Amino acid sequence: MTSNIPQGPVRKLAEAARDASHAVAALQPAQRRHLIEAMADAVDADRDTVLAANASDLAQARRNGAGAAMLDRLALDAARIDGIVAGLREIAALPDPVGQVTRSQTRPNGLIVERVRVPLGLIAMIYEARPNVTADAAALCLKAGNAVILRGGSEALSSNRAIAASLHRALRACDLPEAALVLVENPAREHVLELLQLTDLVDLAIPRGGEGLIRFVAEHARVPVIKHYKGVCHLYVDRAADTARATRLLLDGKASRPAVCNALETLLVHADIAGEFLPDALDALQRRGVEVRGCERTRALYPAAGIAEDADYAAEFLDLVIAVRVVDSLDAALAHVARYGSDHTEVIATEDTQAAAAFVRGTRSSAVMVNASSRFNDGGSLGLGAEIGISTTRLHAYGPMGLESLTIERYVVRGAGQVRHPDLLEAFTDAP
Amino acid sequence: MTSNIPQGPVRKLAEAARDASHAVAALQPAQRRHLIEAMADAVDADRDTVLAANASDLAQARRNGAGAAMLDRLALDAARIDGIVAGLREIAALPDPVGQVTRSQTRPNGLIVERVRVPLGLIAMIYEARPNVTADAAALCLKAGNAVILRGGSEALSSNRAIAASLHRALRACDLPEAALVLVENPAREHVLELLQLTDLVDLAIPRGGEGLIRFVAEHARVPVIKHYKGVCHLYVDRAADTARATRLLLDGKASRPAVCNALETLLVHADIAGEFLPDALDALQRRGVEVRGCERTRALYPAAGIAEDADYAAEFLDLVIAVRVVDSLDAALAHVARYGSDHTEVIATEDTQAAAAFVRGTRSSAVMVNASSRFNDGGSLGLGAEIGISTTRLHAYGPMGLESLTIERYVVRGAGQVRHPDLLEAFTDAP
Repeated sequence: MTSNIPQGPVRKLAEAARDASHAVAALQPAQRRHLIEAMADAVDADRDTVLAANASDLAQARRNGAGAAMLDRLALDAARIDGIVAGLREIAALPDPVGQVTRSQTRPNGLIVERVRVPLGLIAMIYEARPNVTADAAALCLKAGNAVILRGGSEALSSNRAIAASLHRALRACDLPEAALVLVENPAREHVLELLQLTDLVDLAIPRGGEGLIRFVAEHARVPVIKHYKGVCHLYVDRAADTARATRLLLDGKASRPAVCNALETLLVHADIAGEFLPDALDALQRRGVEVRGCERTRALYPAAGIAEDADYAAEFLDLVIAVRVVDSLDAALAHVARYGSDHTEVIATEDTQAAAAFVRGTRSSAVMVNASSRFNDGGSLGLGAEIGISTTRLHAYGPMGLESLTIERYVVRGAGQVRHPDLLEAFTDAP
Repeated sequence: MTSNIPQGPVRKLAEAARDASHAVAALQPAQRRHLIEAMADAVDADRDTVLAANASDLAQARRNGAGAAMLDRLALDAARIDGIVAGLREIAALPDPVGQVTRSQTRPNGLIVERVRVPLGLIAMIYEARPNVTADAAALCLKAGNAVILRGGSEALSSNRAIAASLHRALRACDLPEAALVLVENPAREHVLELLQLTDLVDLAIPRGGEGLIRFVAEHARVPVIKHYKGVCHLYVDRAADTARATRLLLDGKASRPAVCNALETLLVHADIAGEFLPDALDALQRRGVEVRGCERTRALYPAAGIAEDADYAAEFLDLVIAVRVVDSLDAALAHVARYGSDHTEVIATEDTQAAAAFVRGTRSSAVMVNASSRFNDGGSLGLGAEIGISTTRLHAYGPMGLESLTIERYVVRGAGQVRHPDLLEAFTDAP
């Protein structure tokens, strides 16, 4: 072995989790469903303990001077516990992907070749301050037959411990090893680094959080990582757009929930329709509190707009800000997306099916929407059920990742003694 | 950007290849087929040039003291050129995976959600001295709609240049940019390192070669890597095995081509059948030149066997050597595979369907064979057509990788103006 796999304290945790992964994989679908339901029951029953632990995290965060956004992400209340419990019940009810035969064929030599969906093994989740991720991510990984090792933000440690204790109780009640779900409690950065380098134990790392966290994970991981850095999502309003429809897509995409990755960040408008579309559309945006930053042609049509710098077109504002550019053609819009986009979600508003086809063909993003809001790029809206993340990695999964993305297909081959080179066997007189 | 993406000389090559990838992706299936056929024609027409270049590589390798195995991998002759040309024609004729709609559903709100297969983008192949990989790998990547950047062993540089020149001629004849296929000619190791860190340009790196090369790539890559380190493949002869059938699987698996990754390395035999099976089976192996290294119980039954050390059970011999162990149960066989295996291929010989099911369930390897030779784990035998490699990465692809593994599914959504939060739009009196 020429590789340098670390041998620190996280290794023991990961070894136990990897061992436990076999027990989770071996469960029947009904048993995995029962396990996740038991987890929902346990969190529901332990809500007072979880809320008390969360209150202690919140008090500590306030003492540390955490801002309002951080406190909001960290805070749990009765409604959010209800949301966690309901989310677990939804995951429990999803179809079980494990064991599904995705293809089957009989080869000319009689071999029956099946592709069968199996769990990935051990999944590491690296996330920030939201304690609900502890329950969601654990349930999704376990439902897909995997073990999971969780490393949440240190601000949420007490909350995560309390939630993990509930989930462990459910594992024990189902006669499963607690190590199927491991919480890395030590906040030291070296422990994350060690986890990310356990190439013999960890099958996949999924970071969830801000771009800084994701870049840290991507740059230090030796294990495979699936991620998206950011969502710089574009709406292109084609010359053949229905302007009322385009305006609705714009307002929903930008203003319905600006802090999420599938919100719009940039509006591109064909020059032929800009005069008709932009003034009213941007006015409607501004009345919803959106700051508009435009190119010169945008500002000529809508003087209230600020100036868009080059950096604004690459920005994921995650806020009530939008960059606007007037373009001379669909090709110019595609060139803009190719230069500034993040492979996340692009939208075209057009009534011209050829323009729609050219836009779909010309973008490589994980989701392309024709006359539909960018906000639909999530697992629930696209019919996957619950979502563990969105991938722009362009490998394994591209776009929203549901249960299926937490499994892989392998080959099971059934024969009757077929060999590859019968001729070589027969060449010996002792041929059996 | 907090990431540190290198800006060296390989970057320019990769940028050109990434640009060219759009042209390859945009081709119609008939055009991609024609391109690969043109490549076959070009190599066929240029065979004298390729052979002359190869002769110069061989002469240089001999001056450098290369061994017989290296010279054999490096050498081309008329038959091998025929093989390259025939391989390209087979790839041309494979079904085109790009554009395939793998799933389609209509959501309750009328959205039509399609999963559509698209190319990965730019694939980097890192390989050793076999010049045929230059043609095979390039054709597979292009057939799946990708651009490719090739970095072969420096021993084969003249041969690779000559083959790449032929392939470039075919690209030009099809009005495609030559940069769709880039050969990195500079042998400096820094250039490989740079290539492996171009996370904004390279979508996937596939190393092909010995374990040393693969570990080097895996340890230095920041781009995603799909690989297998080695194939430590097991045959487990169950107590309910048909011994004649098991012997055939053993001889084919070990002796038909020992230097490949799907050859057997270890034989596990249930104690109840060892006395009946082992003496004759090991005798047949030895008469085929195979050196047997066994545990004590093996040596008691077959005294001609050498001693198997612990390291022998972890070894990929790639040679006429086999490690043998007698085990007390199917579970003990599974525990051995879990400890020493490489997730590549495992075989059970048994007439007991329950034992077969337990073996399939209890192994996590990319291919599990019931009463069939381990040698069938390749793309051709399992019905994938040509193969770009075998993955034990347990992500994206697991087992033999064909054209489909060089693509990814993304989401295309067609609507009629649907928005995620119509309620928020209507809340304003200017609601469009």
